[in-house]
Formats: sequence, structure tokens, C-alpha cells
Amino acid sequence: MDTVYDVLGIGNAMVDVLAKVGEGFLSERHLQKGGMTLLDAATAGKIYEDIDPEREVSGGSAANTVAGLASLGADCAFIGKVHDDSLGQNFRRDIGAAGIDFFTKPLLEGPSTGRSIVLVTPDAERSMFTYLGAAQCLSAEDIDEEIIKVSKYIFVEGYLWEHADSREAVLKACALAHKHHRKTAFTLSDYHLAQRFRSELTEFIKNEVDVLFANEREILSLFDTTDFMSALDSIKPMVEIAALTREAKGSVVVNGRVKIFVEAEKVENVTDSTGAGDLYAAGFLYGMTEERSLGTCAMIGSIAASEIISHYGARPEVSLRGFVRNRLLQYGKKA
Amino acid sequence: MDTVYDVLGIGNAMVDVLAKVGEGFLSERHLQKGGMTLLDAATAGKIYEDIDPEREVSGGSAANTVAGLASLGADCAFIGKVHDDSLGQNFRRDIGAAGIDFFTKPLLEGPSTGRSIVLVTPDAERSMFTYLGAAQCLSAEDIDEEIIKVSKYIFVEGYLWEHADSREAVLKACALAHKHHRKTAFTLSDYHLAQRFRSELTEFIKNEVDVLFANEREILSLFDTTDFMSALDSIKPMVEIAALTREAKGSVVVNGRVKIFVEAEKVENVTDSTGAGDLYAAGFLYGMTEERSLGTCAMIGSIAASEIISHYGARPEVSLRGFVRNRLLQYGKKA
Repeated sequence: MDTVYDVLGIGNAMVDVLAKVGEGFLSERHLQKGGMTLLDAATAGKIYEDIDPEREVSGGSAANTVAGLASLGADCAFIGKVHDDSLGQNFRRDIGAAGIDFFTKPLLEGPSTGRSIVLVTPDAERSMFTYLGAAQCLSAEDIDEEIIKVSKYIFVEGYLWEHADSREAVLKACALAHKHHRKTAFTLSDYHLAQRFRSELTEFIKNEVDVLFANEREILSLFDTTDFMSALDSIKPMVEIAALTREAKGSVVVNGRVKIFVEAEKVENVTDSTGAGDLYAAGFLYGMTEERSLGTCAMIGSIAASEIISHYGARPEVSLRGFVRNRLLQYGKKA
Repeated sequence: MDTVYDVLGIGNAMVDVLAKVGEGFLSERHLQKGGMTLLDAATAGKIYEDIDPEREVSGGSAANTVAGLASLGADCAFIGKVHDDSLGQNFRRDIGAAGIDFFTKPLLEGPSTGRSIVLVTPDAERSMFTYLGAAQCLSAEDIDEEIIKVSKYIFVEGYLWEHADSREAVLKACALAHKHHRKTAFTLSDYHLAQRFRSELTEFIKNEVDVLFANEREILSLFDTTDFMSALDSIKPMVEIAALTREAKGSVVVNGRVKIFVEAEKVENVTDSTGAGDLYAAGFLYGMTEERSLGTCAMIGSIAASEIISHYGARPEVSLRGFVRNRLLQYGKKA
């Protein structure tokens, strides 16, 4: 059967809220400076009330990836859970405006839409506070076989592994994808997660994942090693393709007997690295759906990531299609 | 204009003569044991008279490459010089039987057909004695614009750089190829040569070569370094593609911002490594003409080389097309 979608993303539906705060804001509330802290509803609500949001942009790892894919010209759908509140409606509007089909029923009661509150202190440091909210209510019921059946790839974010219900959703989605001879792509998302669920994730990746995305820290954590080359050898027999990002050191694609090292794009001013991995995956998968060589897939991934980190927010601010085409032509590749 | 040939090979037309000799044969004649020695006509004739050839097989680096390509299913032609003597007629018959068009006019007088005499002593060591003969009479006159015009790639062996006349032939062939928007491939052939003609060859490669083949020792010699990674960086801006072989360490393809490392094929018994580089080039170029990814081109090169080193002689003894197809399928690649 023919496909309708190039990629179906499945992940946490989140809104990123960016606000500048004074130096005392964090300490007064006993909030950790730097890094990422998971919050409960009450604390998240309290912080959200006290800040003056500079911008609210739809985010979420897999959602960012399909937004990137759509900007590149791919046909995409998304499965993820919002509440039917104001943030949830924003999320739905943004993802629709990006041209992505989004059918998942919103919550009408219970937790509000998930958000990542990013507080920027005067010293320019970013502290992230995440309340998953409605997102963690994603369950196997939300996985629609009819959509998976018509999608070339499903792309699943590792953050979903955190909760039992969303883990069920992941397993159901992968089983259905393979039942219909579709490919599964998975991103490790977080090195803590790779550490905590090491043996389960290893089994899952070996059995269910065709294309794995991870950054260097995540793949090292998965194999409990500090030796990147040995991690490459460990992942090789487990998946068809592993695409591993290494920031300024570029990326490495492992595909059976072939290892491909691709240089990083040079970016003059890195403004906000949020979403770099999500957009690398977007570019890479776009290349895959266009049947480009794996080296070119990795180049497209790096180019897409370079656009995202040049501004705040994890959704593209230009047409990635044109952006990538121009860069590929500079490198003497057909666009 | 459409092409007729996938690859036109240009090189020394040689016949490989293999003979077993006693331990005293070399010392009695003051011949160097091991390695390769260039001979004059008289000495070559003398040795040839004194041995009992076990087999005579057509060889020559670029000729081996087009023979490999033909066995893979590519359409090929060859330009190289033989004498119209018995060895020359053998060469012509072999290359014709392989399905390769060979139009170059033979010498009717002057030096006899070139040969590499390989003497195997009872200790299994191989000593090679090369008499270029007619091969070194190749000149610009033998380069036919009409053939180059209809060939996707020309493939030139570095050994031709040795003599002024054949060097002229190389430069004419490359200029004509680019005039007709064809691609040029070149193999360094020999590390001594890379050393002796370092600056000339560097200029030539930069200006005229699209695809460069070399083994590790040759590329290190070209850049006068012992650091392979720095040699990769040096060759990167000079050519579109460099395909570098490293024996058991596999091969590396450099293509702009992308470096591809491909594992070597495992070969149970290496019988005779003659022709490994020639057949790697054959497999690689075959992949290029089929528009396979560069990683797959390198895999095909390694597979083709693994067939050659499993027996004596540098021409395939099975249909490489089937041999490569089966191996690719084992690796989960489409054949």
C-alpha cells in the first residue's frame, strides 16, 4: 500500500516558555540554576504565574523533528497529548500551521498542557524547568494503526520511555510499524534516561529500532563506556543505521560495515542549542525519504541543526528547504 | 551525447609470466630476490628463455581494472601498447574474450610486448622482474578523442607517468575527457613513483583528476608524511573523491566534508595479492557508474579485490557480477 506520510512523529507535546528573570528569582524559590529540573503541576503553575513570558513556542523533541521535516518539504503527522487549554491550543495551531496532521484527542480534564519553562538570568545562563502535564497521559489508545500503516517512518522520542503508559504506546507503535513493513526511528533523548533504563532500552533498540539517533553522551551512557569507537562497534549489530551527533566534531553514521564521518557545519554565533538534535534527525530522515546517500543525509541533518541553533527556539525560522538546498549547492552536491 | 563505454582504461599492456624456479636461479643471474626490478630487453629475454612458464596471463594495472569492470557487467574499452608478437596476441585475445574493446595499433617492429616475470622460489617468495617493452611506446597519438568522447570515465594508471611519451598521452586523455564533460580517475600505482614525481603529480591530481585511487603507502608518500589522517585532509580539497585502500584495515573514501571508513572483506587464504588495488578500483568505479552510494562503491571494491587475492593472477576467475551480488545480499544491501 502506498504511504501518505513520510514521517509520523510520536512524542511529548510541549510548549517552550522563555522568560528573563532577575538573579534572585531562582534562589527565592529554591530552584536549581542551570540544567533541567522536572516539576510538579503546582510548582510549574506557580512559576508560570510569576514570570512575564517573552515568548511561548511549541516544542517537544519529536514535534520539533516533524516541524523540521515539514519545513524541508516532507509530509508529516504527529501523535502526542495536549490539554484543550490555551497552551494546548497554541501547540495545535503551530503544528497545523507547519502543515503537519495532528489528530490526537486533547485532554478535557486532568493535567494541563506540558511546558518547558526556560528562565534566562542576567548572566545569560539558562535554567530549564519541565512540567510534562498532559504529555505523559499519552497511551497505547492514542496509537492509531491507520496512520502508522500509511507512514514510511515513525519517529519516536526516548523521553516517552519515562512513563509506563507512554512506553506501552511506543511498543505498540513499533510493533504496528513492523507489521506494516514500515521503518522505526528512535532518539535516545537523554543520557540519564539511557543510564536508568540501560538494559531495557538495549533490548528495545535491538528488537524494534531500525534507525537510532543519539548524541555522544547518550550513546556512551547506553553502553556504559567512555570510548566512543567501542560504542560504535557495540551499536553496529543492533540497528540498521545509527546516526550519532558530536557537536563541533560533526556526526558519525554507522551502517553495517561502513562508518561515515561528516564534519559539523560552522555556525558563527550559537544563540540557543535547544533543538539541535531534533533538527539533525529531521534533516537526516528527510535525506532518507529522498533516498540520498547516508553521508548526504548526515550533511542535511547538520545543516538543519545549524539553522536552529542560530536563533532562540527549536522550530525553524526560515524555509529549511531553501536553506538546505543553498548549502548543498555550495558543497557541490545536487540539491 | 550518450556514452558507449562506462570506463575507458589507459595503461601499460602487460603479460604476467609466472614460473617456479630453484633457489639458485636468482643468485646465479645476480637477480634481486623479492620486490620488483625493472629490466632491459636483453635480460628479460634471457630470463624468459631460461624458465618454464607455469602460466602466462594478461595483466597490467588499468587492463586488470577494466577486465574486472567487464566481469561486473560494465561496458569497457582499453588503450595500451603491445607488439604484434605472440605475447601481444595473447593480450589482445584475453582482453577481447573479456568483452573489452581494444583498438590501439600494435607495434610491428621495435620492443616486444611488455611482461612481468614472477619467479616463485621453493621458499614461496615472489620476485618480480618487469620489462615494459612495447607498453612504454604508448604516446599521445594513441589517444583517440572519439573513444574518450563516448566514455563516462577514463581510468589512467600512474605507471604511465614514468615515461615522457606516455605522460603526454595521459595529459592529452585528461584534457579531452574534461573537454567532453567526462570524469577522470587515476591510480597512483607505486609509492616510489609518488615520491619521485611528488610535485608534478600533486599539480596534475589537483588540476586533472576527479577520482583518485591509492593505497596507504602511496598516499603517505605523495604527501611525504607518516600520518594517514593528515594525508586525508591534504587530499580532500584536491579531488572530488579519493578512495584509499589499507589492506586488512579496509578502505577510506574522502568526499568533501564526508569521510567513509569501510571494513575489509575477510579472506581465508590470501594466495596472491597481485591486482588487489586494480580490482578494488574496478568494483568502486562499477558502483559509481551504477550510482551507488560511496560506501557501497567501497564495499563492491573490497569484494572484487577479495576474489582476486584468493587465486594466482590479477584477472577474475569467476563472474564478479554474481560474486559481488551474493556478497552484497549477505550484507543486506540490494544487489
